[in-house]
Amino acid sequence: MKKYLMGIDVGGTAIKIGQFDLEGILINKWDIPTNKTDCGQHILPEIYEFLDSIVNLDEVKGIGFGVPGPVTNGVIKNGVNLGWDVLDVKGEFLSLLGNKEIIVKVSNDANVAAAGEVFHGAAKGYKNVCLFTIGTGVGGGIIIDGKLVDGYDGVGGEVGHMLVDHNRRFTCNCGKSGCLETVGSATGIVNLGKMYRAMDSSSKLNRYERLSAKMVFDFAKKGDQAALKAIDEATNYLAYALSLVTLVINPEIFVIGGGVSYAGKFLLDKIESQYYQYVTPFITHAKFALAELGNEAGMYGAAYQVR
Amino acid sequence: MKKYLMGIDVGGTAIKIGQFDLEGILINKWDIPTNKTDCGQHILPEIYEFLDSIVNLDEVKGIGFGVPGPVTNGVIKNGVNLGWDVLDVKGEFLSLLGNKEIIVKVSNDANVAAAGEVFHGAAKGYKNVCLFTIGTGVGGGIIIDGKLVDGYDGVGGEVGHMLVDHNRRFTCNCGKSGCLETVGSATGIVNLGKMYRAMDSSSKLNRYERLSAKMVFDFAKKGDQAALKAIDEATNYLAYALSLVTLVINPEIFVIGGGVSYAGKFLLDKIESQYYQYVTPFITHAKFALAELGNEAGMYGAAYQVR
Repeated sequence: MKKYLMGIDVGGTAIKIGQFDLEGILINKWDIPTNKTDCGQHILPEIYEFLDSIVNLDEVKGIGFGVPGPVTNGVIKNGVNLGWDVLDVKGEFLSLLGNKEIIVKVSNDANVAAAGEVFHGAAKGYKNVCLFTIGTGVGGGIIIDGKLVDGYDGVGGEVGHMLVDHNRRFTCNCGKSGCLETVGSATGIVNLGKMYRAMDSSSKLNRYERLSAKMVFDFAKKGDQAALKAIDEATNYLAYALSLVTLVINPEIFVIGGGVSYAGKFLLDKIESQYYQYVTPFITHAKFALAELGNEAGMYGAAYQVR
Repeated sequence: MKKYLMGIDVGGTAIKIGQFDLEGILINKWDIPTNKTDCGQHILPEIYEFLDSIVNLDEVKGIGFGVPGPVTNGVIKNGVNLGWDVLDVKGEFLSLLGNKEIIVKVSNDANVAAAGEVFHGAAKGYKNVCLFTIGTGVGGGIIIDGKLVDGYDGVGGEVGHMLVDHNRRFTCNCGKSGCLETVGSATGIVNLGKMYRAMDSSSKLNRYERLSAKMVFDFAKKGDQAALKAIDEATNYLAYALSLVTLVINPEIFVIGGGVSYAGKFLLDKIESQYYQYVTPFITHAKFALAELGNEAGMYGAAYQVR
């Protein structure tokens, strides 16, 4: 008798494992370290052994994975953060399961985080959703008609690599420059904070050798002009990117998550107020919400895939 | 016994009506004039009367409409080209049909054109498709998992209004400036052709008082430098917009239709060669195709909705 869904968010440091009932209620959760030795070849066997030790696999309906990289048909194309190159995660895990009747699904981690917010968070009840996860980078997750959009090459929702800064002032991890990540992520906010403080000797941001996105937000909230310029510009780029997503899929709700989203209403208000200048006049009441599941969104969303 | 699908593309001048078998083979087609008098209130009754006179409605499985404007749940939000304001097209037509068991679906005309290319044109067999219809404006149609994405406010696929020219040199019909339509449509090619010929007295484009997109293409093909700059810039904006769509939904194939697409391989090659500078390095072999159904795409796609 099938009783459980397992959601597994495979990160570069830790693997989050959630056990859910068939309604999506979290029953139990665990963290295990990510063993990246030997090109990450122990990761999937160790997950299998852990699962086999904590649940009766015959009672598991499905096991969903979120992995950091582009995924198509269960295959990750570039799993460099885990020591993987191209890996058939679904196929390998099905082999480990042998002839047990368990559904296995694999998606990109930002995509499953979006699914998590749909399953049990800020987008619960919505079927057409876009999540922006704003942290070190900017990840995106797209849900249409209740289904994750991985995309043909696995780059559905890779909004962090939209070219938005046409002056291409900062280089991105992807090798290009001008990507949304270079100006709209925590890294981007620091990039802009450094640029604006250099132009304004009165800015309190100049007191610190190392800047963080949180510092830029905190000083902006206190009225520091250089910090405010950095936040206004970063949120303007985010608003612009959200307008572009709107003009492709026009989702019911945008959810903003990731570490930067802890800036809360201050962040959301800045994004929302700048959004309408970019979209068509038909959009007058877009819905924006802060993510609710924090770093458990991936675990929830991984399970959502196999519900 | 249900034998037919009817596809109806309601344009500002004419209404194209196609009769298809259940496999999507076109059996017969008609054009009737669009009667926009009295705020367009005769349009739907006249379509009903025409259908009732040419087919046995009891043999019709479904009637699909393409209409010019944003559509949600069968309701057009701004049907100004037809004399309509907000109109419940689906509801009104179901009333006309009385208690006949016929499926009625309504979508935006650019979206149904995309569906048409999936049904019987350049994207046949593909389930995840983006069509750009490049004519006086730029319309977009998005198909995901075989279904049209109208969007929550009906602006799914409204790619023509993506802000791409951040210098906002030309004003768009929507009231904003810098939209893709102002630089990537036939109108946009003329805008750019006029700009570049004014900077280059040797350009043969200066010989003509009125420019058309076709003239700019023809002179570009012959090596006129001002014309080439205009075409390179227009196709660069189109390539950029296609990269943005990729980073949201990563479709299997892009189809380029509309009047401008008659420029053929010259156009497609220009777009394709500029596309890769904008997308992530994971995309190395995107598929681009020219639309095949011409101005019958809408009629095919309207029927596709009710297949």
